[in-house]
Amino acid sequence: MTAPLLVRAARGERTERPPVWLMRQAGRHLPEYRELREEYTFREAIEDPEIAEEITLQPYRRYGVDGVVMFSDILTCLEPLGFDYHIESGVGPVIENPVDGPDDVARRRGDVRDELSFVADLLDRLSESVADEDAVLGFAGGPFTLASYVVAGGVDHRRTAVRTFRARHPDAFLELMERFAGVVAEYLQMQADHGADAVQLFDTYAGVLPPADYEQYVRPLHREILDSVDLPTVEFVRNMGGRLESLAATGADVVGLDWTVDMTRARAELGETPVQGNLDPSLLFAAPETVRDRTAEIIRAAGPEGHILNLGHGVNRDTPIEGVEAFVETAQEWEW
Amino acid sequence: MTAPLLVRAARGERTERPPVWLMRQAGRHLPEYRELREEYTFREAIEDPEIAEEITLQPYRRYGVDGVVMFSDILTCLEPLGFDYHIESGVGPVIENPVDGPDDVARRRGDVRDELSFVADLLDRLSESVADEDAVLGFAGGPFTLASYVVAGGVDHRRTAVRTFRARHPDAFLELMERFAGVVAEYLQMQADHGADAVQLFDTYAGVLPPADYEQYVRPLHREILDSVDLPTVEFVRNMGGRLESLAATGADVVGLDWTVDMTRARAELGETPVQGNLDPSLLFAAPETVRDRTAEIIRAAGPEGHILNLGHGVNRDTPIEGVEAFVETAQEWEW
Repeated sequence: MTAPLLVRAARGERTERPPVWLMRQAGRHLPEYRELREEYTFREAIEDPEIAEEITLQPYRRYGVDGVVMFSDILTCLEPLGFDYHIESGVGPVIENPVDGPDDVARRRGDVRDELSFVADLLDRLSESVADEDAVLGFAGGPFTLASYVVAGGVDHRRTAVRTFRARHPDAFLELMERFAGVVAEYLQMQADHGADAVQLFDTYAGVLPPADYEQYVRPLHREILDSVDLPTVEFVRNMGGRLESLAATGADVVGLDWTVDMTRARAELGETPVQGNLDPSLLFAAPETVRDRTAEIIRAAGPEGHILNLGHGVNRDTPIEGVEAFVETAQEWEW
Repeated sequence: MTAPLLVRAARGERTERPPVWLMRQAGRHLPEYRELREEYTFREAIEDPEIAEEITLQPYRRYGVDGVVMFSDILTCLEPLGFDYHIESGVGPVIENPVDGPDDVARRRGDVRDELSFVADLLDRLSESVADEDAVLGFAGGPFTLASYVVAGGVDHRRTAVRTFRARHPDAFLELMERFAGVVAEYLQMQADHGADAVQLFDTYAGVLPPADYEQYVRPLHREILDSVDLPTVEFVRNMGGRLESLAATGADVVGLDWTVDMTRARAELGETPVQGNLDPSLLFAAPETVRDRTAEIIRAAGPEGHILNLGHGVNRDTPIEGVEAFVETAQEWEW
């Protein structure tokens, strides 16, 4: 049996066209999602495998994307460490028991497979419902991003709280991240055991650290996490332009590129390492011809080997369907 | 007469030690500022030259910095284009008449020297009160950053509104930025005429654009603005790692570096172009020895020619005085 198109690209193979999926493809930009969500809270939707499966499959049915990313949340990993949270409408996540100081990082360590079994159930279902040529994608939040939420107590756009915490309490900061890394590694292994074809580590905000701090604190943990997973892995961190080789040095199979990186330059810096990305999500609001042109530029610059087409970040909630269609179709109609 | 230390560094000269100043050095982290601000609103403080002078001089007296940046706001340039705004405590600026669509970018064009004469008065005062060996610094917000506020109607951390506007209405987006560029150029010329020794263009958020869009829309306007000013200029845009040469290509005398750029690498990419930066502002919360070590690493990596020591972004409001002292003293005690 041939591996899914996305997995072949993740291995660095030449593919007949780039596989395509979108970060946050299952979500608010889809009318069928908004309709379904009227009946369930976000937490209910991600914790009920049947509802989560339905939401996961919505963009798969509509667009025929090659990667089917499970509907879940990067914050699910907070629970096995005893952090409670809820989503406040219009605000975002609120951590009910945030880190209260350097002596408050040693929380309980719950059983990941037990506490997050709903994700295993979801992946079991998706393995059945997704065609063999398409890839089921799992994911997890990374240790810095998780730490940023529990230190700030919720959304903190500039990540000031966690950056200050790392300056004032470097040992506690590292301990907190190590605890998350342990949970994340176990969580991704569980996803592998339940049929994920590839997984993405979203340490989206770790790029707010200076290069030396990223290297010292974060990269070793990413390496540890990614080494422990026996599947193709994607490493995604924003604002790493000028230091992409740090991402490749985590041992990730694929480096995810945000939209502020020029694809030609990324290829030159990363050599043969496969890449994913990298259209600016806000460009999906442009006229469909513009979307097609900008998408084609990325595909051409990336070339035929080891490229997974994606946005440079998640789909915005008000994104027009026509923009997403133009993006996906450009990949689907491509011929190398 | 010898030029101020900061101006010599801005010209690329070898200096006996790096000149030092901090973005947002006059502000909330200083107890004397917080005390004075109890009596005046932010707008009152920036629009009264006597109060603004006092605030400007507070960090100069306390730390003896080499650059004395006028106390003002990047949003002052909104007024000559007819955008009204106020600062909402705990929220930030609120634009009272934001851009309502692509047909709403052609506002009135007021007289900059008339409407912003309080800034000229402030600079006249500072020229008297600042010693000849120290530099009076002016500044302005850049066209993209200004556009981001008037399109969003206020703070918009991800700049989603302006990014979407540029995708949907590229012509109106460019027209809006061109209008701001005209005002900014005139404003910086006025600052030069009233005794500023150098000026900084803060287009802080323009790095959220993909490289191709930065090149197409923003860089020509920066070049136009900077070319029109007969003073040493600093160009500051965040998240430009991996494309620093775009900043140098604006014709700026000095490239400002945020804290996510490695100084050694920046020097390798920029060649002889003078640089400013780049300590992570959150590191000022660390133990003073750590602040000294990290600051010394930057000074060593930058070398003795054409380096102005600064943070990689503005001082945070809760920053401890000891952290700022350790930072400034490291430069003041340096000997090449």
